[in-house]
Amino acid sequence: MAVEKYDIVIVGAGPVGLMLSTCLARWGYKIKHIDNRAEPTPTGRADGIQPRSLDLLRNMGLKRKIMSHDPAKVYEVAFWDPNSKGIHRTGTWASCPRFIDARYPFTTLLHQGLIERVFIEDIEKNGVKIQRPWTITGFKNDGKDPNYPVEVSIAHVDGTLSEAVRTKYLFSGEGAKSFVRDQLGIGILYKDPISHVWGVMDGVVRTDFPDIKMKCTIHSDAGSIMVIPRENNMVRLYIQIASSTDADWNPRKTATVEEVQQHAKEILKPYTISWDRVEWYSVYPIGQGIAERYTLDERVFMGGDACHTHSPKAGQGMNTAFLDAVNLAWKMHHVESGFAPRSILSTYESERKLIAESLLDFDARYSKLFSARIPSAGEVAGASADQPAEENEFVKTFKASCEFTSGYGVAYLPNAINWGAEHPAQHPLFLPHEKGTKLRTGRTLIPATVTRVVDANVVHLEQEIPLNGSYRLYLFAGNPSKTRTALHDLATHASAPSSFYSIFAHKDTSADRYHERHNPHTSFLSLCTIFNSVRCIVDIDAMLPAVFARYRDHVYADDVWDQRVPDAKAAAHAKIGFDEERGGVVVVRPDGYVGCVVRLEEGRGTCEALNAYFGVVTGRKLGDERAAL
Amino acid sequence: MAVEKYDIVIVGAGPVGLMLSTCLARWGYKIKHIDNRAEPTPTGRADGIQPRSLDLLRNMGLKRKIMSHDPAKVYEVAFWDPNSKGIHRTGTWASCPRFIDARYPFTTLLHQGLIERVFIEDIEKNGVKIQRPWTITGFKNDGKDPNYPVEVSIAHVDGTLSEAVRTKYLFSGEGAKSFVRDQLGIGILYKDPISHVWGVMDGVVRTDFPDIKMKCTIHSDAGSIMVIPRENNMVRLYIQIASSTDADWNPRKTATVEEVQQHAKEILKPYTISWDRVEWYSVYPIGQGIAERYTLDERVFMGGDACHTHSPKAGQGMNTAFLDAVNLAWKMHHVESGFAPRSILSTYESERKLIAESLLDFDARYSKLFSARIPSAGEVAGASADQPAEENEFVKTFKASCEFTSGYGVAYLPNAINWGAEHPAQHPLFLPHEKGTKLRTGRTLIPATVTRVVDANVVHLEQEIPLNGSYRLYLFAGNPSKTRTALHDLATHASAPSSFYSIFAHKDTSADRYHERHNPHTSFLSLCTIFNSVRCIVDIDAMLPAVFARYRDHVYADDVWDQRVPDAKAAAHAKIGFDEERGGVVVVRPDGYVGCVVRLEEGRGTCEALNAYFGVVTGRKLGDERAAL
Repeated sequence: MAVEKYDIVIVGAGPVGLMLSTCLARWGYKIKHIDNRAEPTPTGRADGIQPRSLDLLRNMGLKRKIMSHDPAKVYEVAFWDPNSKGIHRTGTWASCPRFIDARYPFTTLLHQGLIERVFIEDIEKNGVKIQRPWTITGFKNDGKDPNYPVEVSIAHVDGTLSEAVRTKYLFSGEGAKSFVRDQLGIGILYKDPISHVWGVMDGVVRTDFPDIKMKCTIHSDAGSIMVIPRENNMVRLYIQIASSTDADWNPRKTATVEEVQQHAKEILKPYTISWDRVEWYSVYPIGQGIAERYTLDERVFMGGDACHTHSPKAGQGMNTAFLDAVNLAWKMHHVESGFAPRSILSTYESERKLIAESLLDFDARYSKLFSARIPSAGEVAGASADQPAEENEFVKTFKASCEFTSGYGVAYLPNAINWGAEHPAQHPLFLPHEKGTKLRTGRTLIPATVTRVVDANVVHLEQEIPLNGSYRLYLFAGNPSKTRTALHDLATHASAPSSFYSIFAHKDTSADRYHERHNPHTSFLSLCTIFNSVRCIVDIDAMLPAVFARYRDHVYADDVWDQRVPDAKAAAHAKIGFDEERGGVVVVRPDGYVGCVVRLEEGRGTCEALNAYFGVVTGRKLGDERAAL
Repeated sequence: MAVEKYDIVIVGAGPVGLMLSTCLARWGYKIKHIDNRAEPTPTGRADGIQPRSLDLLRNMGLKRKIMSHDPAKVYEVAFWDPNSKGIHRTGTWASCPRFIDARYPFTTLLHQGLIERVFIEDIEKNGVKIQRPWTITGFKNDGKDPNYPVEVSIAHVDGTLSEAVRTKYLFSGEGAKSFVRDQLGIGILYKDPISHVWGVMDGVVRTDFPDIKMKCTIHSDAGSIMVIPRENNMVRLYIQIASSTDADWNPRKTATVEEVQQHAKEILKPYTISWDRVEWYSVYPIGQGIAERYTLDERVFMGGDACHTHSPKAGQGMNTAFLDAVNLAWKMHHVESGFAPRSILSTYESERKLIAESLLDFDARYSKLFSARIPSAGEVAGASADQPAEENEFVKTFKASCEFTSGYGVAYLPNAINWGAEHPAQHPLFLPHEKGTKLRTGRTLIPATVTRVVDANVVHLEQEIPLNGSYRLYLFAGNPSKTRTALHDLATHASAPSSFYSIFAHKDTSADRYHERHNPHTSFLSLCTIFNSVRCIVDIDAMLPAVFARYRDHVYADDVWDQRVPDAKAAAHAKIGFDEERGGVVVVRPDGYVGCVVRLEEGRGTCEALNAYFGVVTGRKLGDERAAL
């Protein structure tokens, strides 16, 4: 019997595995997805969705389903410190402060199982069924079949059934205990020698503590606690049970529900608290660890907790997992579609490991400070009991880290896909951050509200192209009367068969693509045009060359006022830092990060610069001799 | 065998019946709901949800489910008139222009069956199953059982089964052909002698007509058409097939799909159109009719199309049906809960019939103008072909009617529940529109964005109390340091056993209401307090008397900037027209319309005015002798 062949085998149906599976299933890949649990997460575990992750979920059309569970939303964090009466609030701080231009400036709290089910439903709609409870028992990149080089053995957890399959890729989303990582012999580097044992409890409480519906970090003379509101009127409490800095450190130290509740009661004094019910309780040790490698051969990959473990308190686990998966998904898709050389896969580790390192650095500092006992006011000579003291280190670290924890601080360094001064593609029309655009390559597009021309809907520009695996080309077309020639020149040169725009054009030109909104011309990219004009005078066919007018559902008027640039006539242009008359071009990677920014000018230059960038990205020679410089 | 007894028998499961059933099922009533169709609407029919209706659906927690079907949204309407080349756009106009302060300034288009299913799911969750296909065969308000005075006979449409039940109320949501209305001998008044036959077609088209995703009204030399975008890339076309003003008027005139398509092709010239598929097609005669009465005995009621029929083009049918039902639902609920005298039921007809009359007036004017042939430019001496002519009557009527068609123009006249100068309750602290508040009784509350104190969530104040059948008391508490005494005085007087606040207090004081957010004290009202203050300094227990602090989930900080009142410190106060320091009190009816507005002052005056208003509303003597004046 022939061995079954797959594009990918995914092990583990937690956040990282589900996100990868969702993307690849939508894009038509053949997937074997297994998980060693009989059911999705029933209660507890990760629960924080950061603002940037919510953008991503919306871009996938999954936000509304998640919101239908009425999650708690955290807009502010309250800081409580000890004083002579017990504890007192020293201040609050926005969870995603206004200096961050976020559509959803809050953290969304919902139990992981409900989030998993939203993904599972989507995956099943695309014909993939997660095989449970099955586990991986072995794998080998033996190259026996060059198209499906990896053999993977899997088995039912009770050992009664087993299966061997061949695959192009194997992905471990197994969590911190990764069979794949162990087999590969990849070690975990522990960034911080300090380990902690944490207790976490979800339940419904009654209390006179006034901030019970806020995220709070509470330091008292009796210990520290973190309060996180949850859906269904629940509250999550994180309590540290032991730390390797304790005199009697024991990594196996534990505590009963009652002990943790008693501890919480001590910490919260003078307020009272009691529990109506406890939905979930767990004790677990945490160390800040990071895998030395995310892949050895660019066939067998790992992501999520298999690569990085840290404390749950910054609410980053699920979010980092999502972004690991999306980063890998589109790169695999581009390699398998012939849009990119295999070498692009190396950027998965280089981009995502750096993020994990930043996360661990932050987490180590934050956890250490969180665990540190803060002297109560009574102990501080001369301090008045209810006078807010100088901000302590903990609050300072929290505030300084908001951009990072919201997800918007993620910044991929310059490489083949994130243009920079050292990029192999060089052209005078590349527009770096230093020369005027407010965008930075390797970061997300700045959000902007515009009016869609065809139906006058007021829309979020950054959400208009769904996560479809395509590059996103934004033509900020400025004043149509001034950019007319530039647009036509770009269209002319982009129409050359060897250009970035045409080289991956659909082969099957006889197919009916009349109703295709996002990829009428090629699956390699989607295109939006934004005019500095009021909507009602935009005449798509008169103002745009036919090749761009074809993306008529993606033509926008930059005519919506924005509080952040109150004096701008064309707010989207202004927010990005483009001349409102002259416009410019932004290339965004399929995962939403800026690839490069190019000036829009008459002549062939704009197309040349784009050919040069995409030439590197795709590993192809694009444009004619002159265009390639 | 004892006859089964119900609180209400509802006949018909279209928009009006479903909305009534949804409300009453949520509030715990025993319902017999029948419909003579075997299934909910499969395709076509009503599809427009106006901005005000969307507010209502959100208030019921149903908006997200409706939006999950990705309906089309109409932000603008385009007007097309004949010219020498065929047709040309003369202008566009916002569907819900900016002078209307709407959260959702667009019309939502979704086929009626999907909307019905959202309601049916909710009804079933509350234990009511619609009995299909069953029909009403007779009824009689015979008073044999004073508690259940109406006997209703129903039968399976195939006649094999029948049932007789007794009920407190009978409601006909049967549509234009109402058995109940016929039995009651209630006539239909035809407001407009002109009748029309309309063709309506839903389908997927391909066309080069640029506004195919907009709502358009098109007048050409070949006739008139209305274009309405739909979900799933569909387009609805309304075409008039015959009018009683035609020389050869025949109310039974019809047309095939192909004839209507051919007609559309003629009208749209010079543009082309063809159909990929037609999902639904129907031809029906329309007259502007209104029932003489909505009830004879305040036991047997009618609503929706059973009471008023008109053309579909203003997209008002379903919206008027929803508001009929909500208007009746809460009044029945208050009568049955002992919160209101039976006489309140008379306001159902007086309030809703007036709205229907306004709708019919509008529709008659609009339809007549829509059907009228507009001379093409070539026929108008001296007119330049592409020069927008003076706005014609049709466009003027459309623009003038935006407030009405958006749903925000609904204005109930002063009566027992809408305070006015002639209201039996008189007190110097009542604050009418003429004396400074921007609110008008009988209209919706002005929307305002505020910060909820307990969890720092930024919320829509007008949505914070769900449609729970309770009055909504908004204490705009101004500057807490200036209103402290006024709030305490109000609390003291409101705590008197005979006050509006206490008279319907929960009898069962031993019940555990710790987790009750909206009705901890009474089902008669819910209470919100809004301070002119930044959130972080609001201390609920210190700033509010205990009786109001109990509604702690409904305490808000008026600290969110609003573009409509850019200079206000406290935007919600300012939008309502309250002094930002002194505040004021707004009473909103359970269906969201303002009942009365009262000044917030020290002493017993504020409570006296509220007692006076609620005394009339409840038919009780409230407050002590002095307080009642």
